[in-house]
Amino acid sequence: MQSPTPPEALVEAIDLVLKYQVRTGHPLFFNQLYARADPVAIAADWVVTATNTNSFTYEVSPVYTLIEAETLRKIASCIGGAFADAHDGLFVPGGSISNLYAMHLAHHRANPDLATKGASGGPRCVAFTSDQSHYSYLKAAKVIGLGSDNLVSVRSDGRGRMLADELEVSILRAKADGALPFFVGSTAGTTVLGAYDPFDEISAVCARHGLWHHVDACWGGGALLSEKHRHAMAGASEADSLAWNPHKMSGAALQCSAFLNRHPGLLARVNGTSAAYLFQPDKLNASLDCGDKTIQCGRKADVFKLWALWKAKGDAGMARTVDACFALAAFMAGRLRADPSGQWALAYEPSCSNVCFWYVPRRLRPFSFAASTEAQRAELHGVAPHIKGEMQRRGDAMIGFQAANGRPNFFRMVFAHADAVR
Amino acid sequence: MQSPTPPEALVEAIDLVLKYQVRTGHPLFFNQLYARADPVAIAADWVVTATNTNSFTYEVSPVYTLIEAETLRKIASCIGGAFADAHDGLFVPGGSISNLYAMHLAHHRANPDLATKGASGGPRCVAFTSDQSHYSYLKAAKVIGLGSDNLVSVRSDGRGRMLADELEVSILRAKADGALPFFVGSTAGTTVLGAYDPFDEISAVCARHGLWHHVDACWGGGALLSEKHRHAMAGASEADSLAWNPHKMSGAALQCSAFLNRHPGLLARVNGTSAAYLFQPDKLNASLDCGDKTIQCGRKADVFKLWALWKAKGDAGMARTVDACFALAAFMAGRLRADPSGQWALAYEPSCSNVCFWYVPRRLRPFSFAASTEAQRAELHGVAPHIKGEMQRRGDAMIGFQAANGRPNFFRMVFAHADAVR
Repeated sequence: MQSPTPPEALVEAIDLVLKYQVRTGHPLFFNQLYARADPVAIAADWVVTATNTNSFTYEVSPVYTLIEAETLRKIASCIGGAFADAHDGLFVPGGSISNLYAMHLAHHRANPDLATKGASGGPRCVAFTSDQSHYSYLKAAKVIGLGSDNLVSVRSDGRGRMLADELEVSILRAKADGALPFFVGSTAGTTVLGAYDPFDEISAVCARHGLWHHVDACWGGGALLSEKHRHAMAGASEADSLAWNPHKMSGAALQCSAFLNRHPGLLARVNGTSAAYLFQPDKLNASLDCGDKTIQCGRKADVFKLWALWKAKGDAGMARTVDACFALAAFMAGRLRADPSGQWALAYEPSCSNVCFWYVPRRLRPFSFAASTEAQRAELHGVAPHIKGEMQRRGDAMIGFQAANGRPNFFRMVFAHADAVR
Repeated sequence: MQSPTPPEALVEAIDLVLKYQVRTGHPLFFNQLYARADPVAIAADWVVTATNTNSFTYEVSPVYTLIEAETLRKIASCIGGAFADAHDGLFVPGGSISNLYAMHLAHHRANPDLATKGASGGPRCVAFTSDQSHYSYLKAAKVIGLGSDNLVSVRSDGRGRMLADELEVSILRAKADGALPFFVGSTAGTTVLGAYDPFDEISAVCARHGLWHHVDACWGGGALLSEKHRHAMAGASEADSLAWNPHKMSGAALQCSAFLNRHPGLLARVNGTSAAYLFQPDKLNASLDCGDKTIQCGRKADVFKLWALWKAKGDAGMARTVDACFALAAFMAGRLRADPSGQWALAYEPSCSNVCFWYVPRRLRPFSFAASTEAQRAELHGVAPHIKGEMQRRGDAMIGFQAANGRPNFFRMVFAHADAVR
């Protein structure tokens, strides 16, 4: 039997949590694609928690419902193109769920019997993503009953960008196999390399073959806010859907994930159940309810932190954060390149604000991946975990590492907030 | 171009939000299955937001990762039976997602090829829920590609409890049709009537036919905390999985939803992708990472508010809240029954803390549903929306209403916090 804990002991427990949780707001936390949350966003989220409601009906969430619609409009206008003309959307719990929504909508568009008859007797649908895409596409393929065999991995170029020609070849091959290609998941800012896929080319391929084009801009979508970097998103505005996580790079506290598509009404048609006890047409203002568009019932008003943050910073302030992250990455990559000692080596040319690099121990210098032996790679592979373990023990910095595309463990330094210093 | 909003204007905006958002913590808010959040839970959630991290790896979320495991153990011990011996679980964003997890796991258990080959060439799987179950089962059936035709609605009795005999007949019929029955979703505390399905009988049927039994205890799961009411959950401990939303009835701020199952390792097997950049085995303490069990990537540490709340209240305090909600419902039902004027009529005998009733206008008194004419029902149907509209305009109270099972609109008064007064 657990007795009540006195308030002072609870306060002590909270102090211990604050002591032992990782300080993700620390200027030397570079481990993830999120980092320091903006104080305005934190305060706004506190308000949402204190008002404790559910964004499923206008009746119980009038202000957040209106703010969500307004903020989605604002994002749609940043995406521009087809999204500015017509859009629909939701704030959802995370980018993986955004990618799931996209694949789910596309799946239903491709197979109109899916909602009633299910997938089992239906066509074998096939989806396409690049070999650099986020693992949530694979999770989504398993959730919607597509299966990993029907998620085709399309090769990327040396910077991590999906090869549109290869995509088209893969689509034609799937058609020849009797399958129904239905979905392409491209990426703006891949997780490891930060690559931006060629959205205009991919949109053209999708249009030619009737596939849904979803842009996972969870990480790199901030480029939409910046005059300087929005060229990287060219063509994304012609996609069918787009996901953006303002809790990455933009300082909205976790979670803050926007999912938009340019097919108004489709979310409600695919996900709607018109639950009689909740979405009664004889209530006041029932037309403003957005719960029937979701795969959730309860949904926290994650939108409010982005709304408050954007109001506080203005468009120019939002753009400045993104520009600062990109500039810091370019600065660091320049420093690594300019170092004559050979102790640093870029594992990839940087994209977005990702810098992928090796620390090269003295006896492996100078290190060139192309010219390296297997033994040298194996030795280098052990370096990053060792350094990271040391960083963690000391508590002075955190930087993620991984092995990818056959390259031994390298550090991925990601600039996810503007407060890092040169 | 949107300019920055000065801080004082932002503060004014927040004041307006607080003014125009519905006061779900008001003692006369009875509209939803959640209501007043406990201040301890709110404070704990504020801490989670301030520490801004992601519960996917131990590395970036050490304290919350350990607290989640500990809290799931605590809940499993409350469920008892098979769950106390072995369990696995997660905190997820809402009860609908919990039900989705359950159906998704069951789907993969029933069809081991699903993860790779997908559903299209596989068996026609069929799931079963009662006609009183939550609409999220239908949403989940559409998400996982099952299709609404393959979600069979099983009749319930006059109190809203699934008829186990009818369930077995439905399963046999599906088998005779060549389908593969795989999942039963029962309910502890149905949304409208608050009914508890006969879990022991359903578990026995599921065991006989090899189906996964999931208990949606999102609303009524609080009964597990109470010596007085846990008899309603008899047999739930032999189910395969269970969902409980402590943001309902227990005062944890939205969202706080626990999903448990008693098949350790299955979540990771079904949802795992072993993303190379995140779940590297060469990191420190990687075995404690729980991200590979989820369908999300980013996941907020919703567990912490329940942990703090439970510590603050102790077992007895948690039980007291549940007992108070049940007692308030029984008290109110008694008052309605004892009223001689005929102005109140119970639409159903109450279960859980739901009281479903009509306000009967003078000329329809005394009202008996069984003896009523269609015209009388139509007239009564318009009463609840009218009264509710008036309550909303005045802002003095909120009580949900709905039509269900052919009965005209009735109020559903739900006691979701212990602070309502007699």
